[in-house]
Amino acid sequence: MGNIKLNFDNMGIANAQIAGIEDKIAAATKAMDEKRHQMAWRDLPHNQTAVVEEILAYVAETSPKITALVVLGIGGSALGPIALQQALHSPFYNHHKQFRANAPRLFVLDNIDPATMADLFALVDLNATLFSVVSKSGATSETMAQFMLVKDLLEQKMDKEKAKNHIVCTTDSQHGNLIKIAKTEGYKTFHIPVGVGGRFSQLCPVGLLPAAFTGLDIKALLKGAADMDKICQNADYMANPAFAFAIYHYLAMEQGKNITVMMPYVDRLKYMSDWFAQLWAESLGKDGLGQTPAKALGATDQHSQVQLYVDGPRDKVVVFLGVEKFDADIKIPKTFNDMPAIGFLGGHSFTELLQVSQKSTEYALTKAGCSNMTITMPQIDEYAMGQLFYMLEVATAFTGELMGINAFDQPGVEEGKNALYRHFGKPGF
Amino acid sequence: MGNIKLNFDNMGIANAQIAGIEDKIAAATKAMDEKRHQMAWRDLPHNQTAVVEEILAYVAETSPKITALVVLGIGGSALGPIALQQALHSPFYNHHKQFRANAPRLFVLDNIDPATMADLFALVDLNATLFSVVSKSGATSETMAQFMLVKDLLEQKMDKEKAKNHIVCTTDSQHGNLIKIAKTEGYKTFHIPVGVGGRFSQLCPVGLLPAAFTGLDIKALLKGAADMDKICQNADYMANPAFAFAIYHYLAMEQGKNITVMMPYVDRLKYMSDWFAQLWAESLGKDGLGQTPAKALGATDQHSQVQLYVDGPRDKVVVFLGVEKFDADIKIPKTFNDMPAIGFLGGHSFTELLQVSQKSTEYALTKAGCSNMTITMPQIDEYAMGQLFYMLEVATAFTGELMGINAFDQPGVEEGKNALYRHFGKPGF
Repeated sequence: MGNIKLNFDNMGIANAQIAGIEDKIAAATKAMDEKRHQMAWRDLPHNQTAVVEEILAYVAETSPKITALVVLGIGGSALGPIALQQALHSPFYNHHKQFRANAPRLFVLDNIDPATMADLFALVDLNATLFSVVSKSGATSETMAQFMLVKDLLEQKMDKEKAKNHIVCTTDSQHGNLIKIAKTEGYKTFHIPVGVGGRFSQLCPVGLLPAAFTGLDIKALLKGAADMDKICQNADYMANPAFAFAIYHYLAMEQGKNITVMMPYVDRLKYMSDWFAQLWAESLGKDGLGQTPAKALGATDQHSQVQLYVDGPRDKVVVFLGVEKFDADIKIPKTFNDMPAIGFLGGHSFTELLQVSQKSTEYALTKAGCSNMTITMPQIDEYAMGQLFYMLEVATAFTGELMGINAFDQPGVEEGKNALYRHFGKPGF
Repeated sequence: MGNIKLNFDNMGIANAQIAGIEDKIAAATKAMDEKRHQMAWRDLPHNQTAVVEEILAYVAETSPKITALVVLGIGGSALGPIALQQALHSPFYNHHKQFRANAPRLFVLDNIDPATMADLFALVDLNATLFSVVSKSGATSETMAQFMLVKDLLEQKMDKEKAKNHIVCTTDSQHGNLIKIAKTEGYKTFHIPVGVGGRFSQLCPVGLLPAAFTGLDIKALLKGAADMDKICQNADYMANPAFAFAIYHYLAMEQGKNITVMMPYVDRLKYMSDWFAQLWAESLGKDGLGQTPAKALGATDQHSQVQLYVDGPRDKVVVFLGVEKFDADIKIPKTFNDMPAIGFLGGHSFTELLQVSQKSTEYALTKAGCSNMTITMPQIDEYAMGQLFYMLEVATAFTGELMGINAFDQPGVEEGKNALYRHFGKPGF
């Protein structure tokens, strides 16, 4: 299996600029090594053999009994599962069983909008639905409120002994209310390992459980991550895609580029931009620093955002995300040969049209002086997705080291949480 | 029916700063008036009585024969229809007929990804599908390639006379290949009026036709826009929400805020951020100027982007988009009264939790010095959506006047288009 490839030729950053921060790079490289034991998420590709077997056994037993899996989770508990699901299944997976074989539908309820929730509960059959409650702390207001509602709905519908089989909890193995409730009620549980924060949790049961339910090969996902871990241990930063991604972005930030756009030219990778947006924003947006992630999709956003990228300020990096081989291809028929303005498309394929659109946008941006880079996947499968998730996680951690900030906390969300707690009269606030 | 309301108290901009650009504001106000006849999109709420009747008659005749409407369009031909559809229907509209009564499913094919297209053609029944081809110029490569494919697929499946009833074209009434083809083939057509550009076309048949097919009240949509047009003619900019939106954003840009985030706290308004992102980016991103639109969703992105907004650089405006009344509400049961850390939620409603989440985030951002403002809708219906679309269009045009740029062209997309044409050997390139 091939590796994902990164290309930085169009970043507009000279080798001399990189050489100018060699000391910083060396220090960050050393720190990544020394702090590795604090980054429990780095071990996830290697230490989950038993966890994977437990997940597969649980899915094999439970999946035939359900037609829908509803994930109750928000932020890191939702974005990875959504990104992986969208990447590896049809966009119509939930619409028709031809696209999901015998696997259950997957819904990720990552917001508390009552209109959405009412419709979802009208859509699914509670007797054949499994609710997967995901919160490391067991104190996430949105998720716990949903859990309280779901527990109530289930216990109105069926006896308590039956209801408990419709709930599975993924949380810390020791601390918090969710594990306490799960033990009292007798819910099946999976654990988020100590030291694995929400936005770095996609390769633990948070991501593995829903993936396994939809029939994805979670061993291949972890194998991709494990192989990328080897590549990301290379101290030669030009042979280490995660370090190079970090270095180029760091230098772009130093030049005042406060925006990074992830722009896949593949529908199925659209939600990787959402997953990455959390990882990048919440890890690096602190101490008055940080780049704002923006999301675009090619070719669609050539008709929306590219005008700004080409003619607007030089304040951004665009990260193209392309794929060499699509699952399907379709030829454009030679229908209007007599109309040159559109006839020229005939005989080509949609893959070619999409890939040439990406190349053309890269060219236009580069000519206009807009920094851009590409990540290219050989194809979209579990192995390549494992590589991509893991590479971007290491890249984010390394960027944190270069910036001199702690990439693993999120102190800035407390103020809003506290205001909410005060409104609701939570004890102690 | 109430009006949408805007509040700028948390922008951190003093009245004296606004007074400092009084001359600029006066000049822009005058220009908006003088150039009104060049802005054909401003007349759409007023001059379409006949068009609306034609659309309603066509929908009444055609809708019973189809189970799916597939829009082939990109950019402005897609984003408005998607935003309106998502705002006014269930997120599960396409999943189950309980959410769409007898209306057809709606799919907007705004990208050329062959994997998505292959799955869509496997999902829909061509015999009961109407394809709506939307391109003002009739030269949009992505849309015309899709049209060529669809025409071919239909004519393989049924005789040509029948096939023509499965295609409707929305394009310029005189110019371009699409109107020429439509006339030759005998397709039903609707027209994009002269002077209405793609990103300002939501209130012409581009947006009205798919809306009518899904059962929305397009007269109420236009009425909302018409009433907002009156409000937006007020030369007193503090009583004119569009002018005020523009002025505050212009002053924020002058302070170096090069990012504007639209953050609805309503699932159904999520795609308004995509529609607005095109409007704002493509209209104002030129001459080295322009703000990059970012998209967020509350409460979800409190667990993704808010850390950055609070603790990161002061480089952005956050536009909250809230609603006073949801279609549905759900109570949180009083389940865990013995656990104070979550029990405090019991007895409250999800509407309250969501609205208080917005207020709490506004508070946290304001305290941190991050400029923010709110747009509040009394409820989400056609009338309010008409107001919102129209207000943001006028706001964008007025911002262009303040910035001294032409908000209605898009010269920056030519370079990429030309590169693509060269690759494919389009005559003349």
